[in-house]
Amino acid sequence: MAIHHFQPTHYHTAIGSHPPVLHIASGDSVVTTTVDAWGKDSSDTEVTQRGNPQTGPFYVDGAEPSDTLMVVLDRISPNRSIGYSRTVVAPNVVDPVFVRELPDSGVADWRIDNQSGTATLLKEDTRLGSLRIPLAPMLGCFGVAPSKAQAISTDTSAEHGGNMDYRGFIAGVTVFFPVFVPGALLHVGDGHAAQGDGEIVGTGIEISMEVQFTVRLIKGKRIRWPRGENDKYILTVGNARPLDQAVQHATTEMLRWLSEDYGLDTVSASILLGQSVEYDLGNVFDPAYTMVCKLPKVLLPAPLTTPAS
Amino acid sequence: MAIHHFQPTHYHTAIGSHPPVLHIASGDSVVTTTVDAWGKDSSDTEVTQRGNPQTGPFYVDGAEPSDTLMVVLDRISPNRSIGYSRTVVAPNVVDPVFVRELPDSGVADWRIDNQSGTATLLKEDTRLGSLRIPLAPMLGCFGVAPSKAQAISTDTSAEHGGNMDYRGFIAGVTVFFPVFVPGALLHVGDGHAAQGDGEIVGTGIEISMEVQFTVRLIKGKRIRWPRGENDKYILTVGNARPLDQAVQHATTEMLRWLSEDYGLDTVSASILLGQSVEYDLGNVFDPAYTMVCKLPKVLLPAPLTTPAS
Amino acid sequence: MAIHHFQPTHYHTAIGSHPPVLHIASGDSVVTTTVDAWGKDSSDTEVTQRGNPQTGPFYVDGAEPSDTLMVVLDRISPNRSIGYSRTVVAPNVVDPVFVRELPDSGVADWRIDNQSGTATLLKEDTRLGSLRIPLAPMLGCFGVAPSKAQAISTDTSAEHGGNMDYRGFIAGVTVFFPVFVPGALLHVGDGHAAQGDGEIVGTGIEISMEVQFTVRLIKGKRIRWPRGENDKYILTVGNARPLDQAVQHATTEMLRWLSEDYGLDTVSASILLGQSVEYDLGNVFDPAYTMVCKLPKVLLPAPLTTPAS
Amino acid sequence: MAIHHFQPTHYHTAIGSHPPVLHIASGDSVVTTTVDAWGKDSSDTEVTQRGNPQTGPFYVDGAEPSDTLMVVLDRISPNRSIGYSRTVVAPNVVDPVFVRELPDSGVADWRIDNQSGTATLLKEDTRLGSLRIPLAPMLGCFGVAPSKAQAISTDTSAEHGGNMDYRGFIAGVTVFFPVFVPGALLHVGDGHAAQGDGEIVGTGIEISMEVQFTVRLIKGKRIRWPRGENDKYILTVGNARPLDQAVQHATTEMLRWLSEDYGLDTVSASILLGQSVEYDLGNVFDPAYTMVCKLPKVLLPAPLTTPAS
Repeated sequence: MAIHHFQPTHYHTAIGSHPPVLHIASGDSVVTTTVDAWGKDSSDTEVTQRGNPQTGPFYVDGAEPSDTLMVVLDRISPNRSIGYSRTVVAPNVVDPVFVRELPDSGVADWRIDNQSGTATLLKEDTRLGSLRIPLAPMLGCFGVAPSKAQAISTDTSAEHGGNMDYRGFIAGVTVFFPVFVPGALLHVGDGHAAQGDGEIVGTGIEISMEVQFTVRLIKGKRIRWPRGENDKYILTVGNARPLDQAVQHATTEMLRWLSEDYGLDTVSASILLGQSVEYDLGNVFDPAYTMVCKLPKVLLPAPLTTPAS
Repeated sequence: MAIHHFQPTHYHTAIGSHPPVLHIASGDSVVTTTVDAWGKDSSDTEVTQRGNPQTGPFYVDGAEPSDTLMVVLDRISPNRSIGYSRTVVAPNVVDPVFVRELPDSGVADWRIDNQSGTATLLKEDTRLGSLRIPLAPMLGCFGVAPSKAQAISTDTSAEHGGNMDYRGFIAGVTVFFPVFVPGALLHVGDGHAAQGDGEIVGTGIEISMEVQFTVRLIKGKRIRWPRGENDKYILTVGNARPLDQAVQHATTEMLRWLSEDYGLDTVSASILLGQSVEYDLGNVFDPAYTMVCKLPKVLLPAPLTTPAS
Repeated sequence: MAIHHFQPTHYHTAIGSHPPVLHIASGDSVVTTTVDAWGKDSSDTEVTQRGNPQTGPFYVDGAEPSDTLMVVLDRISPNRSIGYSRTVVAPNVVDPVFVRELPDSGVADWRIDNQSGTATLLKEDTRLGSLRIPLAPMLGCFGVAPSKAQAISTDTSAEHGGNMDYRGFIAGVTVFFPVFVPGALLHVGDGHAAQGDGEIVGTGIEISMEVQFTVRLIKGKRIRWPRGENDKYILTVGNARPLDQAVQHATTEMLRWLSEDYGLDTVSASILLGQSVEYDLGNVFDPAYTMVCKLPKVLLPAPLTTPAS
Repeated sequence: MAIHHFQPTHYHTAIGSHPPVLHIASGDSVVTTTVDAWGKDSSDTEVTQRGNPQTGPFYVDGAEPSDTLMVVLDRISPNRSIGYSRTVVAPNVVDPVFVRELPDSGVADWRIDNQSGTATLLKEDTRLGSLRIPLAPMLGCFGVAPSKAQAISTDTSAEHGGNMDYRGFIAGVTVFFPVFVPGALLHVGDGHAAQGDGEIVGTGIEISMEVQFTVRLIKGKRIRWPRGENDKYILTVGNARPLDQAVQHATTEMLRWLSEDYGLDTVSASILLGQSVEYDLGNVFDPAYTMVCKLPKVLLPAPLTTPAS
């Protein structure tokens, strides 16, 4: 149950089987920092290349393929006062004929105030004035080393997690990843002070973060796609294009979960999901899009067994 | 400002330029009934063929192509105590290899109680017991006659509305449709006592309804896709496959709306949407899927002009 | 076995259950004309509205739902010397970011010479010079009235055929349509003097045609999607978006065909198709895209029974 | 202009920046062997793990990012007499509801005869008898190391090539790859004795090969997607899902090629492609699907400059 403080010195723009920066045990916590999507740290200095550079990987002792890694996002806190967003919706989220209406994208600055919990637009040439929106700090890109000796760009996402850009990945949420390699090799990065669904301008409000997380290993538990849990919901994540396929991955994973842990056969699970499921949209910007399938916990039957510890 | 009471005698399973059942004026309200998706009325008697049969069409006097028809959903109230849902998720919402795990779909009965506002599962062979979920009555399929002398099956949806199966279309919501033909020719039907996102079992809890709505004509206002408004959000609807294209339609329509009515150029609208937009999933069951783009009203700038009246 | 000569006086831009212009019997042939996609006739005069106006519908006596209508395309012959094409690829066939590179589309004229069998570009401001390509006259849009009292725009396609824009629909080809309504109600139109795969500029070389076709009714034979046959191949057609779904429709229909008419179980059909199937691309411009699944006849086993007569 | 003979001792199932097995110069040829998709060599012995194991990588001296690597496929020749295919179409190529009709896939053996140029089915329990089809040996999976330190599974494909499963990649064809890393790092593998379009059973006739290829470096020439050339066509390759996006990538790359090397502005290129382009379907089985855009060489204008040498 140690708490490790780790200060990164280098970063990765592909999630893969890189040499670990730290070995940790199941139950341990890590306090660390992440740079923003453009490689800028807490002093707004570019310290590494662009592209959602990742802190890590962290080697979880004892993790082996076909285990599940549980990651509690304890804290995700902007550690500087300036954030950046792009300013034009991505060509792929508007009708093809409408793309001609899109100007080139610039960058908007936002002042981030952890005290008041707000992000304030610092851009004078729009009709938005000093637009102020609530902070909702999240991690856009994080995950574990993928299978088959792959190294997958932090531009995209897959079964291992990666660049999902789901605004639901905030502090307090638990995320479950399938383990594909010894040690799991957890990477974290790409913090957003806030973000709309879909990350439709190609960014959230990009910012460096102080991050604390706690890992727990669930031995012998095999999952196929990232799962998660917050106060109100259990959730599953599908990453693919088109979105239709992301829906398929997330829904199938939810059906598996309801079967394995709650004993719901397909008919029971279908009746329940059919009238109660909710879907959230992760990014529709990256090579793989993200869809999240959620079920309110209040509707869940008793689990078959006590949760793994 | 008349209130018309209309009792349907026949129904349509394609939305098109059928002879109108009633002429109404801008500002008028209609109180009517709809049968359920299987053609069953308030006495649970099959009175017409299956397939989301529609009540109407209602001819709005003065409506012409390139106007907009505003429809306030005043009341959507189940008028019987039994509802039906399918019991197995649709093959198209799970991974192709997982389809083999799906049994044949049956029908589950639900007891609908308007007093307590609940739907209770009446099916004894599941692990769900007497699952009880909150009522959230909505219209699954409604819209106006399409362009080009088309008659579009109530199985699907397009610019004219149709079978969107969006659980956000509840009482209190205002919906805007583009007008394609003289009189607009509004059709309504396919009530659901409740429904999960995506209508992933191919049905909500299908039930007959008493429906009251009020129309208002916005002359000379041209929109491309259905729009809507509730207490907290303005919203736009895209209907297409894949979902990626539904996202494009809805997002483009929102950009048009923000430009036309709120004077937001593409950069201003993009900055606002990028960090604040929300997307809801309508159906992922029908030939065309449905995605809804929403923006919190609290973030909107002052409109350019007073709304059309 | 009559040969009817029919001169159209009006046209339809939705394929549906319109009043028939002519009753014909199984075995009969019809010689008629079609206007081009922009409603221009053999004298290059605009005689009807734009949008692939259809000649017909022709009522085939005795045709009933669940029959199959066989249509032999006997002759498709340009009946004027000028054809038109658009000049810029459609925004939906290039990368979204590349759309900004596309200029507005104009119209290019082509001189059509039936004698030499060539189309010659008449446009002096390109680097193509007097580009000359072989004539390959085809029908872009034709089909039968759809089910459920639908009228489907000639902009798109579905199970009933419609705007498939498949360059393989040339003279000599036999096409099979499912019959959805009494009389089948065959429509024909949208001739192209030539066309590339995909109809990626949104047009072929659009031209009015003299068309001759022969119908034959196959009673009690139920198919789901258009099928066809030429000297070398049997083929099936899927119309949908995304293309992935069009592939699914066409492939499934081919598996059904091989089972029903050639007695191939799924394994036999799969082994055969797996190493021998060919796919052709119809349009990728319309709301529904088109994919054609083809199998060389030389590889077919003996049919179970003699073909219907 | 050396000819290297290289006998592999190990293989890779991800294409990435692995240590090179051989350094070669522009103009050099390599004669080597590939194992089949299941890791079996010319003696039908499993010598490595399954999953399209690759021979290589080959380091091309002087190759740097933003160069183009030209690879001439001189010879692709089965080096054993037994090949294998799967026996059931993949669930993702049929309608979702039809998946239930699919039995489990087995393996079919084929006798490969280089003398007669045929593959003969060795399976007695089908209606196909001793089905015999022509040999058309091709490489299913080959490519160069991708950008950003990625290692991409040989299950899929992207800008770097990979598992495209395009039956057009036969002996005599020239393929061009973008270079992303020093030395380009060419990998080759996954030979098929024959294959239908789409690789719809998930395999061609999988077999080990003797392969000879010649590389040539085109310095300073930057392309985005694989390109190719055979006797009759120039072609471009797009790899993505859905197929619609693969069409976009391939078409955009063709427009760039016609602009850069043939001086065709977008209008000229569009007119030409619109009436003459052809598309071939690579795989519709892998995570990324493949579409090939082809233009007949006979229609090309004179190139702007002599080809790079």
